[in-house]
Amino acid sequence: MKPTLKRIRALAFDVFGTVVDWRGSLIEEGRRLGRRRRLKADWAAFADAWRAGYRPAMDRVRRGELGWTKIDDLHRMILDDLVAQFGMRELSEADLAEFNRAWHRLAPWKDAVPGLKRLKRRYVLATMSNGNVALLVNMAKHGGLPWDVVLSAEIARHYKPDPEAYLCVPRLLGLAPDEVLMVAAHKDDLDGAARAGLRTAFVARPLEFGDPAKKDVAPERRFDLNAKDFLDLARQLGC
Amino acid sequence: MKPTLKRIRALAFDVFGTVVDWRGSLIEEGRRLGRRRRLKADWAAFADAWRAGYRPAMDRVRRGELGWTKIDDLHRMILDDLVAQFGMRELSEADLAEFNRAWHRLAPWKDAVPGLKRLKRRYVLATMSNGNVALLVNMAKHGGLPWDVVLSAEIARHYKPDPEAYLCVPRLLGLAPDEVLMVAAHKDDLDGAARAGLRTAFVARPLEFGDPAKKDVAPERRFDLNAKDFLDLARQLGC
Repeated sequence: MKPTLKRIRALAFDVFGTVVDWRGSLIEEGRRLGRRRRLKADWAAFADAWRAGYRPAMDRVRRGELGWTKIDDLHRMILDDLVAQFGMRELSEADLAEFNRAWHRLAPWKDAVPGLKRLKRRYVLATMSNGNVALLVNMAKHGGLPWDVVLSAEIARHYKPDPEAYLCVPRLLGLAPDEVLMVAAHKDDLDGAARAGLRTAFVARPLEFGDPAKKDVAPERRFDLNAKDFLDLARQLGC
Repeated sequence: MKPTLKRIRALAFDVFGTVVDWRGSLIEEGRRLGRRRRLKADWAAFADAWRAGYRPAMDRVRRGELGWTKIDDLHRMILDDLVAQFGMRELSEADLAEFNRAWHRLAPWKDAVPGLKRLKRRYVLATMSNGNVALLVNMAKHGGLPWDVVLSAEIARHYKPDPEAYLCVPRLLGLAPDEVLMVAAHKDDLDGAARAGLRTAFVARPLEFGDPAKKDVAPERRFDLNAKDFLDLARQLGC
């Protein structure tokens, strides 16, 4: 193991795309809603559009144009904007509220739970997600994710990639930034973590956007570790 | 089950005394330190003195005389005051730092883990302790406490019984205050939770101070539930 990795005491995980398959799960939830309410829509295009609204909405909060707004509420704002475009105007308020909670039920990639269980023996496992605490807690109960502690941009009151978000992990765990390894499938997330002084582990998730051609999964020397999945991550960390 | 308890979705646990036996654990840690460093002290009196300093120290933070100070640091301030009185002046800085972390290793009461595992099937299990996050996370890993989410006065930046501390549980879990049941072995803690709108469950811990005569464990009608231990709590909640 690299000397820089020997100091690691805690792992901080990005969640959407890194731990759970948001796209596959949203398509499945859309199909189920469609069958129940007799709606036809391109659920893959819908999932991509819902997710595409997320970064611009968070950036409005990061720039201060919107006061602190949690992801559940940002997801609902984006959903409301998509209702007309995807032929969902007949859905009731109760249907929309329930559909918005699809993000609380996203399914883990199949290596995620066995990998986390191995890593948990040696490390403190934290989330560091832009998802709000309730979303992350409900998702963990739904998918059996064995977190030691659920941390979130909501607790830092700053969205990633602001340094305050990453730094809340070492601060609340009583560690130095370089004792925390940020694990993510997104290079910009890891670059943000590195700027805050954390160590970085890239995990390839080639199917995040459905088509592997849409995802850059090339390993990078600037990260402390590059892994194929969570089992490979556990192996490289000696778990 | 009472109608007021049917709405409960999450349980928020006080930790010191309610989940873990701080006194027995500190006495044991003191004895071990004594053998290692050839110190003789009345470790029971020492444990009681360490704990007795806690409420006045927190109250200084609550009144604003001290800026935000986490429990690890308050414990250390109190320990430093007790060193001379208990004949511990020869301990090194490393010994004192390690001894201060005894609070991260407190042992659960024997019904705690099996009771929590039963309750976890139906409810979200949260801590709501004045202990800081690192302390609670390390304690959970040490004792096998299966929390869904570790919440703390440190996250609210208010110590119990300030309402802000209790209210951070429903706020972060996306629930109404009366959907959260505060579980504690201390009546003043439950009275604080009730003032904030949470529901209350009293758990008798007759041995918290060693001698059952030192602890008021009488059930009270003003609490929504009174239980003998966590297995009785699980039974009364239908788990």
